[in-house]
Amino acid sequence: MPKRVLVVLAGCGHLDGSEIHEAVITLLALARRGCAVQCAAPDKPQHHVIDHLRREPTGETRNVLVEAARIARGNIAALGTVNAADYDGVFLPGGFGAAKNLSDVAFAGAAAHADPELERVLRAFRAANKPIGGVCIAPAILVAALREGEVTIGAEPGPIEGLGGTHVACPVTEMHVDRARKIVTAPAYMYDATIADVATGIERAVAAFAELL
Amino acid sequence: MPKRVLVVLAGCGHLDGSEIHEAVITLLALARRGCAVQCAAPDKPQHHVIDHLRREPTGETRNVLVEAARIARGNIAALGTVNAADYDGVFLPGGFGAAKNLSDVAFAGAAAHADPELERVLRAFRAANKPIGGVCIAPAILVAALREGEVTIGAEPGPIEGLGGTHVACPVTEMHVDRARKIVTAPAYMYDATIADVATGIERAVAAFAELL
Repeated sequence: MPKRVLVVLAGCGHLDGSEIHEAVITLLALARRGCAVQCAAPDKPQHHVIDHLRREPTGETRNVLVEAARIARGNIAALGTVNAADYDGVFLPGGFGAAKNLSDVAFAGAAAHADPELERVLRAFRAANKPIGGVCIAPAILVAALREGEVTIGAEPGPIEGLGGTHVACPVTEMHVDRARKIVTAPAYMYDATIADVATGIERAVAAFAELL
Repeated sequence: MPKRVLVVLAGCGHLDGSEIHEAVITLLALARRGCAVQCAAPDKPQHHVIDHLRREPTGETRNVLVEAARIARGNIAALGTVNAADYDGVFLPGGFGAAKNLSDVAFAGAAAHADPELERVLRAFRAANKPIGGVCIAPAILVAALREGEVTIGAEPGPIEGLGGTHVACPVTEMHVDRARKIVTAPAYMYDATIADVATGIERAVAAFAELL
């Protein structure tokens, strides 16, 4: 039986949803490791919609689950219906929109909280000692939900220590494993990096994550 | 100097824009082959907007260039401003939205035409004998623009022969090269395929395309 992995998305686009490159590279890397992937996202309005050409808000309303379905090609579950017992591990791509829709990390920093549905799911994976992965800003969301974890979001710790975690600096092509907690993280587009370097870091993170499944 | 490649996008999402997996896998494969990539898309309204969860039209209006900027992380040019002389080759990811926004192939079949801006650009690449690549349904758009080409869109020829091209059947993990015209194509999600198999086919197409640059 292939290992079953839940991938939590936050919309579709790095400024108001999931970072698209990170999400696709994660889905491909998991598939190439033989994992059976199910995407999920919260069924709620996005925090806002950003025009990714002009980098400014549009005033539109879009739904996180509906937009994330673009990345998932329609094969996506509402996060509120997800049971962690059905999966062997969970992985979160990043994007500034993840910090807005899956938590308030983008606004509240060290006082942030994870989305309640996401916190429920992540705590269930943690309680079952199942591996948890995240890239880019997602490690901050993981720590906001778990109030623990040795993670990387790149060169600077940002809100990690204030949220209850420990930060480890890491270059874009590398990743970090918290072996005690089975948490694997990589900085990805927390750096102003090329897609090739981002992919190298994510592929290494997914390889380490898959070994823990 | 790295080779300069233009990637033409059609929005963001396989039902009303570019197929996201195909686009990202193409961008990554080109980067890993050392290419300098510039994305472009037409600055015009999408044919329509499809809810990718329910697979039905929403009645919204979105702009092809603005939505494609999500995949390009904002680094994208209006197709009307593109000069083929600035690039060594051009590559089109697919998606049902490419057939709607970059042509009317989705509706008109063998009577289809390419978007006029796209036709101008593609004919300039062809006239300069520069390589042209396309995956999924995009090869039909290439043939609609050029009225020639030996291409694949998978198992069945669809509108290719009626548009003036020649179809070559090809499995999802393979690609086809028209050496006389330097046109490289692969079927990708024209099959109901896994992301891993789709990536294998696109990576092989990009490898052959890059050798022709």
